[in-house]
Amino acid sequence: VSELDLIRAIRRWSSNDLIGDDCAILTPPRGRQLLVTTDMLVDGVHFALATHSAYDCGWKALARGLSDIAAMGGDPHWCFVSLALTPAADRKWLAAFYRGLGALAKRHGVSLAGGDLTRSDRLSADICVVGSTPTGRALTRSGAQPGDILYVTGPLGAMAASGYTLRPHPRLDAGLQLRRLRATACMDISDGLALDLHRLALASGLSASLDEIPVAPGASLEQALSGGEDYELLFTLPPAKRPPRSAIRIGSLSGGESGKVRLQGRPLSARGWDPFARIDNRHRV
Amino acid sequence: VSELDLIRAIRRWSSNDLIGDDCAILTPPRGRQLLVTTDMLVDGVHFALATHSAYDCGWKALARGLSDIAAMGGDPHWCFVSLALTPAADRKWLAAFYRGLGALAKRHGVSLAGGDLTRSDRLSADICVVGSTPTGRALTRSGAQPGDILYVTGPLGAMAASGYTLRPHPRLDAGLQLRRLRATACMDISDGLALDLHRLALASGLSASLDEIPVAPGASLEQALSGGEDYELLFTLPPAKRPPRSAIRIGSLSGGESGKVRLQGRPLSARGWDPFARIDNRHRV
Repeated sequence: VSELDLIRAIRRWSSNDLIGDDCAILTPPRGRQLLVTTDMLVDGVHFALATHSAYDCGWKALARGLSDIAAMGGDPHWCFVSLALTPAADRKWLAAFYRGLGALAKRHGVSLAGGDLTRSDRLSADICVVGSTPTGRALTRSGAQPGDILYVTGPLGAMAASGYTLRPHPRLDAGLQLRRLRATACMDISDGLALDLHRLALASGLSASLDEIPVAPGASLEQALSGGEDYELLFTLPPAKRPPRSAIRIGSLSGGESGKVRLQGRPLSARGWDPFARIDNRHRV
Repeated sequence: VSELDLIRAIRRWSSNDLIGDDCAILTPPRGRQLLVTTDMLVDGVHFALATHSAYDCGWKALARGLSDIAAMGGDPHWCFVSLALTPAADRKWLAAFYRGLGALAKRHGVSLAGGDLTRSDRLSADICVVGSTPTGRALTRSGAQPGDILYVTGPLGAMAASGYTLRPHPRLDAGLQLRRLRATACMDISDGLALDLHRLALASGLSASLDEIPVAPGASLEQALSGGEDYELLFTLPPAKRPPRSAIRIGSLSGGESGKVRLQGRPLSARGWDPFARIDNRHRV
């Protein structure tokens, strides 16, 4: 199998004329700012060939990128996939990977616009997603104000309870709704509520108080707090604003030590998924 | 070392406020189309920790992406770096990687706008570069016409002759010049003249005749034909157009079998660097 053969096959799978030139040529939507995110997944770290089907790997790779677009209140447009393939990832594996990725892309109107293929002795996939928002309207982590109420878009911990094998669903609709509502801050919960809330509070220069944690059926409180990969959105609204109907109120923000998080009055450590903190973290998968 | 520590350190090295949110927020230049390219480099395939300094790895990773922008006649703007790090790539290695990447970025006015960090047992770096051209003015591989003259921007084979250890210089100035000249087709020579010319001819639906090959001092004809990584530009102009002063005329295009390449009348096989064609190719590095 040559690189040219693989590219031809990927063109068929994606029904898209990609990788014909050195770059993809994209026309940016008018009056908008671009959102760009990259996420690298490594076999044995973010998924495992032993427990994740090729379809699920492709789905998950794109889901992580789309969740970053959702977190900024963006509309997703294009994705790029760089793959380092091992001999174990044969043509059949690759076809299923692109089917999984393509199914999620189609659901959200995203085009596969390019990428790169190479080989390695450790399979990895790097996904780049490009989206947009009207200029000046992207949601960030840093805009929360003292007194703002803290919400999540759904219960947490289901992904950890499943052994990280559930198919994640990026909350793009919720992100759009929050952009229209002008949420003061927003991010996705990819590394666990405890760590991600610490980041949001730190970026906003505030401290956070958690009153209650919505634990998904079958999950433990610890999984809800630090399991990660739930891809729900964590966001803040001024007290006077009515949240979207499905939002769950979990606490509030105030002044005080920047980045500090308390759960029912007690300090909560910023623990969660960190690929470099090997001591605190279980190997995910 | 935690991910947050590394991100803080990278911010210092890049003097840039990156990775603060889930996505980078970019304002696209008005009246322009975007060019986006991704390139994955894997230790032992595209470089080797044993023979390439961290500085050179960072430089080379960005150089490959910038060369793709040059090939389209683009102006580069932003780059994103996803790294899968091994324990061998310590903080000092990482600092030197970003210094090398940053030196080349600065030279071409490119901002490091984001990226991702994870770990693996095989070091790899995926680079995404975003650039632009005035709308409708990007150079492609597919626009060559019968009778067009074929040129390269410089002699070939020096990179292979060096054992792929030279620091590549993307030809962004030449790309701009060729955009203004309205070159009919253009691409960079990353995988070797024989293979890349085959691709250009195929994309344009033409055959190509090579009259002479400009061999770099110290390189063999074979290295000039199929060594790859020279990152010179391969381009076509109508016979009536005067080429840039430093361009070297190497042949011409005509009808006939699409993608066919002849060297001084004899068929030339489309051989060159292909990470998947292990039999024909030396392991590069």
